[in-house]
Amino acid sequence: IAKEVAKLLEMKAQLGTDEGKHKFVLKTPKGTRDFGPKEMAIRERAFKAIISCFKRHGAEVIDTPVFELKETLTGKYGEDSKLIYDLKDQGGELLSLRYDLTVPFARYLAMNKITNIKRYHIAKVYRRDNPAMTRGRYREFYQCDFDIAGQFDPMIPDAECLKIVHEILSDLQLGDFVIKVNDRRILDGMFAVCGVPDSKFRTICSSVDKLDKVPWEEVRSEMVGEKGLSPEAADRIGEYVQLHGGLDLIEQLLQDPKLSQNKVAKEGLGDMKLLFEYLTLFGITGKISFDLSLARGLDYYTGVIFEAVLLQQDNEHLEEPLSVGSVAGGGRYDGLVGMFDAKGRKVPCVGVSIGIERIFSILEQRLEASEEKIRTTETQVLVASAQKKLLEERLKLISELWDAGIKAEMLYKKNPKLLNQLQYCEETGIPLVAIVGEQELKDGVVKLRIVATREEVNVRRESLVEEIRIRTSQC
Amino acid sequence: IAKEVAKLLEMKAQLGTDEGKHKFVLKTPKGTRDFGPKEMAIRERAFKAIISCFKRHGAEVIDTPVFELKETLTGKYGEDSKLIYDLKDQGGELLSLRYDLTVPFARYLAMNKITNIKRYHIAKVYRRDNPAMTRGRYREFYQCDFDIAGQFDPMIPDAECLKIVHEILSDLQLGDFVIKVNDRRILDGMFAVCGVPDSKFRTICSSVDKLDKVPWEEVRSEMVGEKGLSPEAADRIGEYVQLHGGLDLIEQLLQDPKLSQNKVAKEGLGDMKLLFEYLTLFGITGKISFDLSLARGLDYYTGVIFEAVLLQQDNEHLEEPLSVGSVAGGGRYDGLVGMFDAKGRKVPCVGVSIGIERIFSILEQRLEASEEKIRTTETQVLVASAQKKLLEERLKLISELWDAGIKAEMLYKKNPKLLNQLQYCEETGIPLVAIVGEQELKDGVVKLRIVATREEVNVRRESLVEEIRIRTSQC
Repeated sequence: IAKEVAKLLEMKAQLGTDEGKHKFVLKTPKGTRDFGPKEMAIRERAFKAIISCFKRHGAEVIDTPVFELKETLTGKYGEDSKLIYDLKDQGGELLSLRYDLTVPFARYLAMNKITNIKRYHIAKVYRRDNPAMTRGRYREFYQCDFDIAGQFDPMIPDAECLKIVHEILSDLQLGDFVIKVNDRRILDGMFAVCGVPDSKFRTICSSVDKLDKVPWEEVRSEMVGEKGLSPEAADRIGEYVQLHGGLDLIEQLLQDPKLSQNKVAKEGLGDMKLLFEYLTLFGITGKISFDLSLARGLDYYTGVIFEAVLLQQDNEHLEEPLSVGSVAGGGRYDGLVGMFDAKGRKVPCVGVSIGIERIFSILEQRLEASEEKIRTTETQVLVASAQKKLLEERLKLISELWDAGIKAEMLYKKNPKLLNQLQYCEETGIPLVAIVGEQELKDGVVKLRIVATREEVNVRRESLVEEIRIRTSQC
Repeated sequence: IAKEVAKLLEMKAQLGTDEGKHKFVLKTPKGTRDFGPKEMAIRERAFKAIISCFKRHGAEVIDTPVFELKETLTGKYGEDSKLIYDLKDQGGELLSLRYDLTVPFARYLAMNKITNIKRYHIAKVYRRDNPAMTRGRYREFYQCDFDIAGQFDPMIPDAECLKIVHEILSDLQLGDFVIKVNDRRILDGMFAVCGVPDSKFRTICSSVDKLDKVPWEEVRSEMVGEKGLSPEAADRIGEYVQLHGGLDLIEQLLQDPKLSQNKVAKEGLGDMKLLFEYLTLFGITGKISFDLSLARGLDYYTGVIFEAVLLQQDNEHLEEPLSVGSVAGGGRYDGLVGMFDAKGRKVPCVGVSIGIERIFSILEQRLEASEEKIRTTETQVLVASAQKKLLEERLKLISELWDAGIKAEMLYKKNPKLLNQLQYCEETGIPLVAIVGEQELKDGVVKLRIVATREEVNVRRESLVEEIRIRTSQC
C-alpha cells in the first residue's frame, strides 16, 4: 500500500507541476476587488451623499499621489507601520503607498505653507492587513476624509465634524448608530491618576483601544502581563473605562477628586463640556456617547477623538444593541503638520474619515435582499429599425441625437431583429425606442415607442429631440 | 591653494551631512503632483465633459484595483515593460501598479467570463518614464478609457470610438485637432510587400511609431543600422509612410499593384473604407486623417488604431500646423482577452483612452491667462453676526440651514468682526450673508445681505431657506 501511495503522490506532484505551467492565475490581488457596473452604481450613490454633505459644509477638494516618499510616512502610525506597502527599489526614490489620507494632507499643508483650509479628499488607501472581505475589510479601500485646519476658537470645528458624521449616517439610512466621543487629554489624565508611568501612556492606550473587540479581563491581563503595569493601576483604569454617558458624566468627572486635580484631564473635560453644548445646539446629542473606553489606535491624535458604530438591527433577544463595527472615525491632531515643518510650526487640525467599504457592504446586501432592479446606464433611447438595410439611417439618426446631448444607444449589427432590440431595452431599462423604417423615412417621422406601456407615436423628425427630453425628464 | 580647497571641500562635506540630518525632504515623489482646490476645480470640469460623453454613449462604469498580480501585466507591453512599477516583496503575492486600464479590463472580462460590455473607467495609471511635467507628462496620471467588447458587425463600434474622441475634443474647446487613423493589418501588409521579414514586423513597427517625434532620415537609419533592415526595404517603407489623406487615398491603395495583392492589407483597407463611410454619416471626416505613419507603441493592437493630436495655434509663419502632442489614442485589440483565458477564447475589443493630463495643462494655462476667478466651493450663504456673544445663535441657524440642504459656512470664531465675515465672502465668492443680531432675533427675522450689490433685506426666519434657494438657483 505504501508503495502505491508513493506512486500516486508522485503522479499528483507531476500533475501539479504541469498545472502550474499552463494554469494562469486569474484573480485580483489578495484583499482587493473589482467593482462591476452594479457595485459602481451603489458606490456612486454613497459617494454622492457624502460629497453633498462635504460641499454643504463649504469644503474644497484636493488630491495627492497614491504613493509618498517612504520617509513621509515613517514614524506616524506607531505599531501599525508594519502594514505599510512599500514599492520595490527600482532606482531613484524609496516610495510607499499611502496608509491614510491624513498624513498626505499634513505633508501637503506643510509643503505649501497652508495654515487655514477646509477640504475633503476621497481616495483609496492601502494596508497590508488581514482582510475580512465579507465584513467590508479590504487591503485597498476608500477613505472619505473631511478636515478643518487652522487656529480657531475651541471645539467649533470639532463639533462640525461630529455634525457631518451625523448627517451622512442619517442620510444613508444605515439604521441606528452611536457616535462615541472621548479626548486624548482625558485619557492621559486618567492614566496619570491611575498610576501609569508616563513612558507607558501610549502602549496602555493601545490596550484600551482593543476594548471594542475583547472583554476587559483580556485587556487587563495584557496590561499587567505583557506590558508590566501594576494590577492596582489596571484595576483603577478598569473602573474608569466602563463609564459612558453625556453631560451628566462630564459633570461627575469634573467633580472626581483625582481627575479634577489633573491639569490635562481638566482641560479635556472642560472642552468636552463645551463640545456637548455645541452638539446640543445642533440637536444631535441623542446619538452621542461620551465613552471613556474609546482610545483610537493612531499615534497622532492630541485632543477630541470619536468613532461612529452601527448598532445591530433585529435583536430583540439581546439586552443591549450590539455594535457591528466602526463606519467613521476621527479626531484632533494638532502636532502632525509641525512634524513636516523645518521649524516645527504647528497647524491645528481636526477631521473625520468615513469608512466607506463597510457602508458599501451593507448597501449591497440590502439591495440584494430588496430585489430592486438597479440601472447601470442612463441611456434614454435606443435607435432601432424594423427592417433590414437601415444601418446607415440608424447611424445618421443616432449621430443627430448624440450631438443634441441625448443619451442614445444602438445595436452594433447591420440587420438586428426588432425583437432583439426591444429585449435589449427591457434588460437594460432603456425607456424609449426610436424606430426608423422605410415608411417613416418617407413621411419625415420617427416612431417613438414607450417601452413600459408599449405605446407607439409618430414624432416629426425635427421634434424628436424635444419629445425625448420631455418624456425622460426627471423634474 | 590645493590645501585650502581640500579644507573647504571637507567643510562642505560635513555641512552636507549635517543638512541631511535636519532637513526633511518635503516633496511629492518624482513625476507626481498634488492637486489643490483650483486644479481640482479644473480637473472636475474636464472629467464632467468626458463622463457625460461616455454616458451619452450608454457606457457602464467599472473600477479595478490600483495594483495587479505582476504576472497579469507580464508580456503585454513589449519594450515598455521596463517602465512598470513593482511593489516590494513583503511576503505574499508579487504585485505591480497598473500601467494602463486596458490590461486590467481584459483581465476583468476573462475572470468574469464577460463577452459583451460597453464600459468606461477613469483612474490613475503608473509609468516609470522620464517625466516632462510642464508638458503634462507625469509618472502618475489619469486615463479615461471607453471600450466596447463583443462580437459585432465590422467597424460600427470602431466608428463610435472616433465619434467619442471628436465629441470630447470639440466639447472641451481645446482648439483645432486632427485624429490620425491607420490599421495594424495595413501596416503588416505594407511591411510584407516592402520586403520586411516576418520576424522584424514588431520592431520595425516600433521604429515607424517614432515618426511623430523624429524625422524620417533618423528612423530610416535606425531601421537599417540598428535593426538590420535592407536599405531597399526601408526606402519602400519611406514612400508609404509619407502618405496621408482620406477616402481617395484608401481607393488609391486598393489599386496599388503590390498592396492589393496582400491579403491582410486588403482586409484592412476594405475595413478602412467602411470606417470612412460610417464617419461620413457621423459628419466628422473633416478632422480624420488616414495616415500610414501612425503605428502606436503597444503590442496588443490587432486592427484599427488611432491617435488625436492638437494642432498648434497662432503660427501664421509656419506652413503646416504643428502638432503639440497626442491627447487621445486607441484601437482594436481582439487578442488580449484570450491571453487571460485558459482555453484562449477571444473577446474582440475596441477602445479609446483620453490622456487627460495634457488637457489639464492646457486648461490650466488658459485659465491663468484669462484671469477668470474660479470658485473652489459651492457655499451659498455665510451665517454671520454683527454683535458679540451670538455664537450660539449662529450655530443654531447654520444647523437649520444644513438640515434643509443649504450649503452654509460660518467663521470658527466666538466673536468675529462683521468686516472679516464680509471679506471672507468676497474672497471665496459666497453670494449671500445671513446676519443674526439682537434686533433680528427679537423680530423673528434674519438680515439677508447680497454680497454683489450690498443690498440688505429682512427675511422672516421661516422663509429664509426658500429665499436662499430662490436667490442662488442656477436655472
